[in-house]
Amino acid sequence: MSNLIEKWGLYETSFKGPKEGNPFLEVELTAVFKHKDSLVEVNGFYDGEGIYIVRFMPDIIGEWNFVTSCNIEALNGLTGSFKCVEPLSNNHGPVRVINQFHFEYTDGTPHYSFGTTCYAWIHQSMELQRKTLETLKTSPFNKIRMCVFPKHYDYNHNEPLLYPYEGSLERGFDFTKFNPEFFRHLERRILDLQELGIECDLILFHPYDRWGFSNMGKENDGLYLKYIVSRLAHFRNIWWSMANEYDLFIDYATRIQIKTMEDWERLAHIVQMNDPYQHLRSIHNCMKMYDYRRPWITHCSIQRTDVVKTSEYTNEWRDQYGKPVVIDECTYEGNINHGWGNITGQEMTRRFWEGVLRGGYVGHGETYVHPKDILWWSHGGELHGTSPSRIAFLRKIVESAPGAINPAKVPEGVFFNPYWDVTCGMVGEDYYIFYFSFNQPAFRNFNMPKENKYKVDILDTWDMTIKELEGTYSGQFRIDMPGKQYIAIRMIRVQ
Amino acid sequence: MSNLIEKWGLYETSFKGPKEGNPFLEVELTAVFKHKDSLVEVNGFYDGEGIYIVRFMPDIIGEWNFVTSCNIEALNGLTGSFKCVEPLSNNHGPVRVINQFHFEYTDGTPHYSFGTTCYAWIHQSMELQRKTLETLKTSPFNKIRMCVFPKHYDYNHNEPLLYPYEGSLERGFDFTKFNPEFFRHLERRILDLQELGIECDLILFHPYDRWGFSNMGKENDGLYLKYIVSRLAHFRNIWWSMANEYDLFIDYATRIQIKTMEDWERLAHIVQMNDPYQHLRSIHNCMKMYDYRRPWITHCSIQRTDVVKTSEYTNEWRDQYGKPVVIDECTYEGNINHGWGNITGQEMTRRFWEGVLRGGYVGHGETYVHPKDILWWSHGGELHGTSPSRIAFLRKIVESAPGAINPAKVPEGVFFNPYWDVTCGMVGEDYYIFYFSFNQPAFRNFNMPKENKYKVDILDTWDMTIKELEGTYSGQFRIDMPGKQYIAIRMIRVQ
Repeated sequence: MSNLIEKWGLYETSFKGPKEGNPFLEVELTAVFKHKDSLVEVNGFYDGEGIYIVRFMPDIIGEWNFVTSCNIEALNGLTGSFKCVEPLSNNHGPVRVINQFHFEYTDGTPHYSFGTTCYAWIHQSMELQRKTLETLKTSPFNKIRMCVFPKHYDYNHNEPLLYPYEGSLERGFDFTKFNPEFFRHLERRILDLQELGIECDLILFHPYDRWGFSNMGKENDGLYLKYIVSRLAHFRNIWWSMANEYDLFIDYATRIQIKTMEDWERLAHIVQMNDPYQHLRSIHNCMKMYDYRRPWITHCSIQRTDVVKTSEYTNEWRDQYGKPVVIDECTYEGNINHGWGNITGQEMTRRFWEGVLRGGYVGHGETYVHPKDILWWSHGGELHGTSPSRIAFLRKIVESAPGAINPAKVPEGVFFNPYWDVTCGMVGEDYYIFYFSFNQPAFRNFNMPKENKYKVDILDTWDMTIKELEGTYSGQFRIDMPGKQYIAIRMIRVQ
Repeated sequence: MSNLIEKWGLYETSFKGPKEGNPFLEVELTAVFKHKDSLVEVNGFYDGEGIYIVRFMPDIIGEWNFVTSCNIEALNGLTGSFKCVEPLSNNHGPVRVINQFHFEYTDGTPHYSFGTTCYAWIHQSMELQRKTLETLKTSPFNKIRMCVFPKHYDYNHNEPLLYPYEGSLERGFDFTKFNPEFFRHLERRILDLQELGIECDLILFHPYDRWGFSNMGKENDGLYLKYIVSRLAHFRNIWWSMANEYDLFIDYATRIQIKTMEDWERLAHIVQMNDPYQHLRSIHNCMKMYDYRRPWITHCSIQRTDVVKTSEYTNEWRDQYGKPVVIDECTYEGNINHGWGNITGQEMTRRFWEGVLRGGYVGHGETYVHPKDILWWSHGGELHGTSPSRIAFLRKIVESAPGAINPAKVPEGVFFNPYWDVTCGMVGEDYYIFYFSFNQPAFRNFNMPKENKYKVDILDTWDMTIKELEGTYSGQFRIDMPGKQYIAIRMIRVQ
């Protein structure tokens, strides 16, 4: 609890208060933070053992003061202050949407999303959690999808180390009494990710459940969301994912939906109302797309619904939803029995390139059969696949571009679409990447504006090489290519 | 001109007649062939040099007599006879549609179509034509798509050996005067194919033209169709393809269609009216599907219109058109510049399996860059690719099945479609092939009827191996798999 807090850092202070009754239910604590004319109201929360916490993430440099309000006299009218100072170099603030289809950090640094998935990594042994963080440290990923609740699904039937509620699988859980130790652990992990520059795409509900957390009832769902948002909204690297596979919340005996579309809209509203910083919000589908046009949704969080085509739909989704397209599940690299978890590293890499050059963002996951059933997608641990190093190569290409990539537009009035058989991404008007996907051309003819000159590079997206061709090219020309799959051609206007 | 003709063999007789004027236009010759109560009327045709020919393909064993009718007295009322005898062992008659979605020869032998494409092979040097036939002899293909007219397109700008009309590129052609030598050459090639057991899918019009054959005018188009059908309908291995890429008959300067939908319907009607045997008829699209529900069309002849998904649409096309689905162009194996001509042998093979297990038929083509610009797809010659041997393996699998393959139906009342992530073809109720395509599962769980026992084989569709698992399987069971791409599992009920 320093009195100097970096911009977008975490200010926290705590107070002693009552521990009688059920403070989670009964105590309503808020605080208003003030800097000059700026006022921000935040929820405080009960952290157990009679401790009440108020957190805040300042976004303006200078002096901040706060005063609390509470329905308990002892916690009402408490005050405090701190000074917000320049952020450290690895702190760019929360990520937000920019230019309709892209992301940036609040300080204006671009955020090109390269996500991965480790649903239940915080529910594994501490040793495995440490290994996961170690792996992430050198991985190309800057976002991770992970669940709050433990997960009951193929390959992952262990009991978690900690539960979010008081109780146990045998006795049942009291959904009005949170387990602060669980949340402190979760927060530690979110900070660990923050230190690695990784956004935490936190999945608030998921259907793979044997503890009852997917079906707690409307009141308890609301209580949960208010509590978790009050605790976590102050971490700059939080994204809210309302659900994993929202359409699979089904009682399979009766085939009745446990959570309807109305429920999701209501629950999203609770998150929206309790987050003073309006972090990114989305919801993830299984078989049926959510209507990503809904105003509370900041970006699409898509699972492919077609077993062959995935990120090739990016352009259509951009047009349809008018928001950033994040394909969080294009299937996973691996070799398990399920079709969503057994594509090759080549195919995973291909899906990344197809999505990125169409102006979208693609997520990774890995599901290789493991002697101890430790699969990255669920448990974290180590990466075994061949795609992450290629995703790192792609990320380097993307980050070295002069701006965000958008899909090339077919010129008006042409009879044949020049991009019908090649995926072309552009940055502005003068930077092109043509991607040949699973095709293996030995050469390609191009027809570029005669008045411009282009530098041409051949990118081998699998072997991760860049071959810079000599001289410049203009108008109609032929480029000889290696006649193998996964080749891209980059053209940058130099004159 | 033997007096003994095998069933579905070619009977031919000729008469001397006038050579003045333009006999192609002026002489109307027909003949009625009679066996007991069976009457078949055929057109005769002028073969130049005052020779008039009458041909017939008998389909009933026994004595046949004919009598001619003609607007020229000398050719009117001429008679002849022959005896139709049992067909030789390699003669199964013309191919026709059976069970809505499949083909058989008229004698009841199944025809599982495995086509290839050599558009302009009959217009290449005689040496190259001989090489093409040699290659076909040991290839897995039993159908070939080929054009009547010479072809003007990338990689193929040579003048043909023979033109179908009197004239030349420089002087122009007389579209009312056929060149019988050209047609005799074409017929020789059709017979060469017949001897190899290969169906000739003859493309009557195509847009890749510098001679004017794609735009001869309504009258001449009709004259051409009547003439060619009168000559060729008597070859049992003929299929009529009205056009290659019917939607590309466009004057690119004015963007006006040279042949409209009405034209195609009218032209198809001419073929239908002049073919006494009603050979198979279709038309091939480029960017826009033809309405394959049209009554004159016997089967779909499809070119993919999606650069990623091709034969995966087979089920939908079966449902939509209610006819056999032949995907004549799923793109070509090769490495040329065009996206339609540079997929790998693996991808070509994959497209075959995807289509065949969905109850369709897929066509091959090859477009590897060649030092002398000899590309199989256009010129014939030699095959260089890796898919033909795998297509041969697939053909063996298909031909060893107890009947035609249809797509597995999702059982009623199940929540999860068991086939959503695996392509499953069935023969009847007791023969399954599960195909895992580009996925690489290390194992798969199955749930088969408890009351049945199945023999299980693992097919490596790329390495062309069949591993027969010991014992039988029933109910729920797991099959360990090699964890690589292009694997199929065959299950045959044995009890």
